[in-house]
Amino acid sequence: MPDRVADDSARTDERCLDVAELAHVEILSPRPEESVRFFEQMLGMQLVEQSGQSAYLRTYEDWYHSSLIITESPVSGMGHVSMRTRSAPALERRVAAIEASGFGRGWVDDSVGHGRAYRFDSPDGHRFELFWEVDYYTAPPDQRTELLNRPQRRPAHGMPVRRLDHVNLLAAEPEPTHDFFVEELGFLSVERMIDEQDATFAEFFTVNSMPHNIGMFRDPTGARGRLHHICFFYGVPQHLYDLVELLNDAGHEVERAPGKHGVAQGMFLYVFEPGGNRVELWGDVGFLVLDPDWKTIIWRLGEGVGGVWIGAPTPDGFIKRGTPPVEGDGTPASPRG
Amino acid sequence: MPDRVADDSARTDERCLDVAELAHVEILSPRPEESVRFFEQMLGMQLVEQSGQSAYLRTYEDWYHSSLIITESPVSGMGHVSMRTRSAPALERRVAAIEASGFGRGWVDDSVGHGRAYRFDSPDGHRFELFWEVDYYTAPPDQRTELLNRPQRRPAHGMPVRRLDHVNLLAAEPEPTHDFFVEELGFLSVERMIDEQDATFAEFFTVNSMPHNIGMFRDPTGARGRLHHICFFYGVPQHLYDLVELLNDAGHEVERAPGKHGVAQGMFLYVFEPGGNRVELWGDVGFLVLDPDWKTIIWRLGEGVGGVWIGAPTPDGFIKRGTPPVEGDGTPASPRG
Amino acid sequence: MPDRVADDSARTDERCLDVAELAHVEILSPRPEESVRFFEQMLGMQLVEQSGQSAYLRTYEDWYHSSLIITESPVSGMGHVSMRTRSAPALERRVAAIEASGFGRGWVDDSVGHGRAYRFDSPDGHRFELFWEVDYYTAPPDQRTELLNRPQRRPAHGMPVRRLDHVNLLAAEPEPTHDFFVEELGFLSVERMIDEQDATFAEFFTVNSMPHNIGMFRDPTGARGRLHHICFFYGVPQHLYDLVELLNDAGHEVERAPGKHGVAQGMFLYVFEPGGNRVELWGDVGFLVLDPDWKTIIWRLGEGVGGVWIGAPTPDGFIKRGTPPVEGDGTPASPRG
Amino acid sequence: MPDRVADDSARTDERCLDVAELAHVEILSPRPEESVRFFEQMLGMQLVEQSGQSAYLRTYEDWYHSSLIITESPVSGMGHVSMRTRSAPALERRVAAIEASGFGRGWVDDSVGHGRAYRFDSPDGHRFELFWEVDYYTAPPDQRTELLNRPQRRPAHGMPVRRLDHVNLLAAEPEPTHDFFVEELGFLSVERMIDEQDATFAEFFTVNSMPHNIGMFRDPTGARGRLHHICFFYGVPQHLYDLVELLNDAGHEVERAPGKHGVAQGMFLYVFEPGGNRVELWGDVGFLVLDPDWKTIIWRLGEGVGGVWIGAPTPDGFIKRGTPPVEGDGTPASPRG
Repeated sequence: MPDRVADDSARTDERCLDVAELAHVEILSPRPEESVRFFEQMLGMQLVEQSGQSAYLRTYEDWYHSSLIITESPVSGMGHVSMRTRSAPALERRVAAIEASGFGRGWVDDSVGHGRAYRFDSPDGHRFELFWEVDYYTAPPDQRTELLNRPQRRPAHGMPVRRLDHVNLLAAEPEPTHDFFVEELGFLSVERMIDEQDATFAEFFTVNSMPHNIGMFRDPTGARGRLHHICFFYGVPQHLYDLVELLNDAGHEVERAPGKHGVAQGMFLYVFEPGGNRVELWGDVGFLVLDPDWKTIIWRLGEGVGGVWIGAPTPDGFIKRGTPPVEGDGTPASPRG
Repeated sequence: MPDRVADDSARTDERCLDVAELAHVEILSPRPEESVRFFEQMLGMQLVEQSGQSAYLRTYEDWYHSSLIITESPVSGMGHVSMRTRSAPALERRVAAIEASGFGRGWVDDSVGHGRAYRFDSPDGHRFELFWEVDYYTAPPDQRTELLNRPQRRPAHGMPVRRLDHVNLLAAEPEPTHDFFVEELGFLSVERMIDEQDATFAEFFTVNSMPHNIGMFRDPTGARGRLHHICFFYGVPQHLYDLVELLNDAGHEVERAPGKHGVAQGMFLYVFEPGGNRVELWGDVGFLVLDPDWKTIIWRLGEGVGGVWIGAPTPDGFIKRGTPPVEGDGTPASPRG
Repeated sequence: MPDRVADDSARTDERCLDVAELAHVEILSPRPEESVRFFEQMLGMQLVEQSGQSAYLRTYEDWYHSSLIITESPVSGMGHVSMRTRSAPALERRVAAIEASGFGRGWVDDSVGHGRAYRFDSPDGHRFELFWEVDYYTAPPDQRTELLNRPQRRPAHGMPVRRLDHVNLLAAEPEPTHDFFVEELGFLSVERMIDEQDATFAEFFTVNSMPHNIGMFRDPTGARGRLHHICFFYGVPQHLYDLVELLNDAGHEVERAPGKHGVAQGMFLYVFEPGGNRVELWGDVGFLVLDPDWKTIIWRLGEGVGGVWIGAPTPDGFIKRGTPPVEGDGTPASPRG
Repeated sequence: MPDRVADDSARTDERCLDVAELAHVEILSPRPEESVRFFEQMLGMQLVEQSGQSAYLRTYEDWYHSSLIITESPVSGMGHVSMRTRSAPALERRVAAIEASGFGRGWVDDSVGHGRAYRFDSPDGHRFELFWEVDYYTAPPDQRTELLNRPQRRPAHGMPVRRLDHVNLLAAEPEPTHDFFVEELGFLSVERMIDEQDATFAEFFTVNSMPHNIGMFRDPTGARGRLHHICFFYGVPQHLYDLVELLNDAGHEVERAPGKHGVAQGMFLYVFEPGGNRVELWGDVGFLVLDPDWKTIIWRLGEGVGGVWIGAPTPDGFIKRGTPPVEGDGTPASPRG
């Protein structure tokens, strides 16, 4: 029999590890067909199911049913962020904690691609869910690969992304959401950018070894619960360049050409999908968070290289523009692409 | 107050997460000065301390005092593998379990670069240690970087590796060591290669999100407790090519040119350091183990692409040759480099 | 008025520059539909025309009508190599020289994609043609790019090759063909590999700054006029790895995984297209031949790193197997892919 | 005997090919020791000789004695551009043409690294020279490589550049210099950027297959004969990223992070060396000029993607700032690095 933890009192100085990973994200699009086509033709993703107003897509290295849901909606934005717990009991524990916090919204039993999920809102209003039971993806015979640790073949169209990497939120007030993430969900604050008043400008959280799974910027417009971007992973810097060639020719709005953040040491590229949501692509995994005693790294805004280590300065309006668009956030009236 | 685990009984279906990461490895070299020069000049590592018969070196992205110890010895081989626990209580818990297993050897109090460590042997005889307290590296002023999440500047000599990645052992009998790793240390068996009799040919374990931290091959010579290789990480495939150019010109023995394993989807390169130990370099992080319910992937030897997905077939003698050399393992009498 | 050459006698120590470039190549395939699909789906090429038994394909950076012709034939092999002269008078001059050599075969007036062409055979029997007038490719509106120096968009399917790079011949007797290439066509012998008897084993010729446009191996089977391989250019090493993933999953026969030749310092990958012809892909331009007084580099077989600088040793049978297959050249009876 | 050109009258429609390549460039530095250290420690170049006020450096793939001369001077700027002719008679022909043009300045007999050279000025005042006889570099034994087509080992320090790529001039009036380059030297105008009045904004010339050897911008300050930048070649995009890490940590002024020009499809990076001269690095060879009938590509300023295909917009002041600095060209009073 495997050795188990015998005495929980021994764990009181340890971070809760009940939430294991980011599983998928739902975005809202007023142009859902164009959005689906973008993720298929540019990012090489695969449409696995359409149900109701939603399309379910996957990347070729994600193991579950889908990693992205695109739901038709009058305005762009985020539907929900979905995370998987470490176990069934871990799900129960987190649900108990969330319910006690007053932010719980209840169970959803009819999700596509996974079992019952508990939904809740961040203090700033971002919809989340946690689940344990999941449907693994099974590739049809012509999409299987001899690579047993890859759920399907690498697609031969577009520049195929490998996996969902992270989601970045905009929050009117980051502090309560920070507290909720850390105390109720066990997130680790890996890096934080602070302004001259020591207030949080940006913060990056992880639940595993990735440099972050969830990021959060303070929303300069004061709007609550918005989405800044979702991010997919290439891991190979060259693929960012290959993708930009496709994006340029197809007329999509590349907001920031390939560069490298100080934060996470992540190589980035930003583009808006046709529905108006910002998509980041990562060309370098950056560092891994392996130190179990990691102390949050504090970047002081205006002094450091956190935003950009390699590349042009962060463009004006980068932080402000989010989805759904709000008055004065800089979203153009008629977006490209 | 952070939310903590309230009832340990809830955890009985969960893997023990007490061991957090591979921290450093000690190798033995009959040509220690040449070995140190190799890691400095080829792999861009930095000598941080010399003490007794040992030299302590580090990579530029590892946070602790050192990631590699080279100890003078009449024969090559592995000194010990050192892993860090998730917390001080986690160390106590693992020590208790190891002592109960009968494989413990006791505490060491005078380690360089970290606090007291508990030493033990794998059932096959590989020396390990666990520790919690550690000395973080502090770069001298001329080696500091504005990149606050990197402990020192990227070196400007050789092709600098970023971090220690994993250690791969040779075991006369993998099964008892598998049991020990899984039951006493909480390792997850990520991938396993089996022969026609379903016996383990190779197995790869992780304690975090990396595809493996510890690997193990069945030693065809029947010798116990040997080292197959240590591995450092680049993350950028191009760097493997850059490194081979340096290695070729310097006359080192490149055993396997850059290719890609099926296992881990890791891009590899193998070279022997002057002391005779095999060193692997990784140019692609491969996949991450994010699924908390990961089922061991089984590769059947001779059928699959586990050994090589891209590249020349595994050369004869690759598995057999290890350190220390034993009769008939194929180690040349007078190695190059 | 531009300054012109005033006195031809001044040029008698200079190499003739009348042949400017490799324009296209015709291969023969017993499985033409599968061959076309391979170049389209794997290498991202585009079918521009079908005429008679031939399909005309192009790469996205080649300026002319087509760079590859696939012609249905009972057996694989090479149809012809087509090169463009520097000018109309240069064409006349070369035709006069070739006719005087006795190897001329006469004019062809009805080529697809270019004007009248003069056909001739190398002394070993490889069919060549020279032409001057050419049809430039004009992309349809939905394939145009804002990049004015690129004739069409980068394709979004397969791993698209950029341009035809070179052709490599097999010759029963390299020496007479060497003489013909140098004396009648003005080729520069950039590199030569010689055996223990100082006989040519391989030779590489250029007419511009590329490391070679035409290569030639001595055919160990003694057959005349065969093809060893055609080569397309990526220029980015990563693309070779991306391509192998597609080739592996599609079941094509990758003969040699990515590596780096000493010759040309070219990063290579070799695969057989379904018709049986070998295709090389280049992931590094290697060196350029810029020195106007370049002296042929001599690689002595068995001593040097000409064949492989980075990578597994050249596999047995690599040189011998060509198209069309001949008795004993190692071509498998039922090829994959 | 090789076949030679029999009748020069046949060549009257052909471009003169007497100038074969860019051989080296001399820059002026008020901080020569720091400049030399920059090229050694950052770009991995090698100091081969010091003579008078000049230091001679080379890249590891250039075949001649040196590719860069750094000469101490009160102000930064360009000393001269040195090009090699195709032959000794070609040199004589060009000298005759230049002398007839009135721009000749006479022979220099005591150059380091090559034979007698003929010096002349462009109409805008840039000093050039042509030569034929050259000293090939011979590596000392410990710098030799088995790669016979590489003159020395790849250096193991800094991020070593492979070869000198091109020089880019600033000209008060590009038109007369264009005429001189085309008519007296035989340059091919590969690409030209024009403003709203169809006047030349930038122009790029080649004498071989490279996308350009010499570039020229109209100098907005009206100054004559200035230098915009010199460029060295990596060929591998990743190396630009590797270099920026070194440059950032060493505090050098990176003006433009890695991106991709439309012109030449060249991947760029710009940095100022400590003497104040701008240095470009190229991470992709871009396209080759293989078409012997190449028609100049015209980019209309403000409409196209000539300046930047991938990357941030060209920063203000990029064109204006050159060396030597002139009033109002934006050179900071106390440069970094």
